[in-house]
Amino acid sequence: MFTLGLCQIADYMDRDEAMESAARYVNKAVDAGASVVSLPELWNTPMMVKHYHDNAEDESGPSCEFMSDLARQNEIYLIGGSIPEVASAKKGTIKKYYNTSYIYDPNGKRIGKHRKAHLFDIDIKDGITYKESDTFSAGDDITIVQTELGPIGVAVCFDIRFPEMFKKAADAGCKLIVLPAAFNMTTGPAHWELMIRARALDNQLYFATCSKARTVGMNEYVIWGHSTVANPYGAISAKRDQSEGLVLCDIDYDYVNQVRNEIPIGRSDL
Amino acid sequence: MFTLGLCQIADYMDRDEAMESAARYVNKAVDAGASVVSLPELWNTPMMVKHYHDNAEDESGPSCEFMSDLARQNEIYLIGGSIPEVASAKKGTIKKYYNTSYIYDPNGKRIGKHRKAHLFDIDIKDGITYKESDTFSAGDDITIVQTELGPIGVAVCFDIRFPEMFKKAADAGCKLIVLPAAFNMTTGPAHWELMIRARALDNQLYFATCSKARTVGMNEYVIWGHSTVANPYGAISAKRDQSEGLVLCDIDYDYVNQVRNEIPIGRSDL
Repeated sequence: MFTLGLCQIADYMDRDEAMESAARYVNKAVDAGASVVSLPELWNTPMMVKHYHDNAEDESGPSCEFMSDLARQNEIYLIGGSIPEVASAKKGTIKKYYNTSYIYDPNGKRIGKHRKAHLFDIDIKDGITYKESDTFSAGDDITIVQTELGPIGVAVCFDIRFPEMFKKAADAGCKLIVLPAAFNMTTGPAHWELMIRARALDNQLYFATCSKARTVGMNEYVIWGHSTVANPYGAISAKRDQSEGLVLCDIDYDYVNQVRNEIPIGRSDL
Repeated sequence: MFTLGLCQIADYMDRDEAMESAARYVNKAVDAGASVVSLPELWNTPMMVKHYHDNAEDESGPSCEFMSDLARQNEIYLIGGSIPEVASAKKGTIKKYYNTSYIYDPNGKRIGKHRKAHLFDIDIKDGITYKESDTFSAGDDITIVQTELGPIGVAVCFDIRFPEMFKKAADAGCKLIVLPAAFNMTTGPAHWELMIRARALDNQLYFATCSKARTVGMNEYVIWGHSTVANPYGAISAKRDQSEGLVLCDIDYDYVNQVRNEIPIGRSDL
């Protein structure tokens, strides 16, 4: 049994403000006993397409340094939400940008990196239109990091719509998946909780999402919030409303094993 | 656009009574304009393990004849819920039994047969214990029938817990899946609607379940009921409570195409 902390920080215009808030909620999570903590999607930039390239960093940038320090100083596993990554380009080629989650161990060492594999390109009648692929390139597949608490699956936001990624993580032994995200006011109410619960139930594991908080007025893209943890029986273990704050949840792998024994649907890691 | 009818008939001790009820609700569905109609799981036998072998029939049995006649006389596609099937055994071998859905076209011709691929073996603490594999053998994979209304996927009850079956059906062009079923009072409230909505949303198609109605007092296995149709956006289009009766739902493939365009997640049949 261990405690997971999800830092639902607001959408800040300024990176320093975002770092201050991230550090504050990570510290709160650690004070409450959390050993795995997540930040939300694109936590170091306002969620506005026009800022993503300007705010992009490579792996030696200040946001990665900040996250590594946070993990080391607090001796936690840190799922670093995601940040805009600029990949080093070969001479004569165009730079590529990714929506990337970096993951750190309690020594501050980077143990994984997930480039969002499915970009958010949607166009819903009387709802939202968004084309993330104008800004970012796509990664591929689920990312699994090895920790002393067992393997943890990491994916980002729109990846949640691709169930086969999470089945693969479950088949590889994951009993916890963490998905930094920032849904919106169209698909948030319609699909957010449904998909979180379904991924948890279908794979009989804990499925945790860490959203940005809703900041009304600043940004055309209004964020749904509602960071949530669903348990292996498909029930909600913890969730928050749209406001900035912390979600804490006990993660109990004995309960994962119990559910997998009660309803045997072929999880290979029993 | 066409109308789907789901006949949520009760759990009868007597096959003739079950047939009478099935015919009554199929006729009602046809009167309301339905061109595809489903019966529930194991409609021709009380839902009691001890009766399954005695009530099993082969393909020339009275239940198959009854279903073929129902389809032909009403000029409908009939998803024949399921019945206990006894397979003809080679001399010297043991007979095998299956939980089988037969599907008929408007000429009364059998166009498909689904043997429940995942048997209901569960043992939930403070909940239900059941071991269907004591009685039945398992089939394999999803069944897809070709109709003038396009391909329709068919699976039975516990099969719903295996999302990869329905992805395969969607990839093969299905925009409607029909799942005869009979959930119980433990997993019904916890998982029934969640899984129906998730299968519909993840595959962006109509996902319809046809349950038996709840009959209290007769049977140790108390049925959840609640036949439900979820649409390609993951919302409930139609559902019933636990009582005997009919569910009608308009199935609109233009809406399937619309949702698949609005949220493109790689459905191959756009």
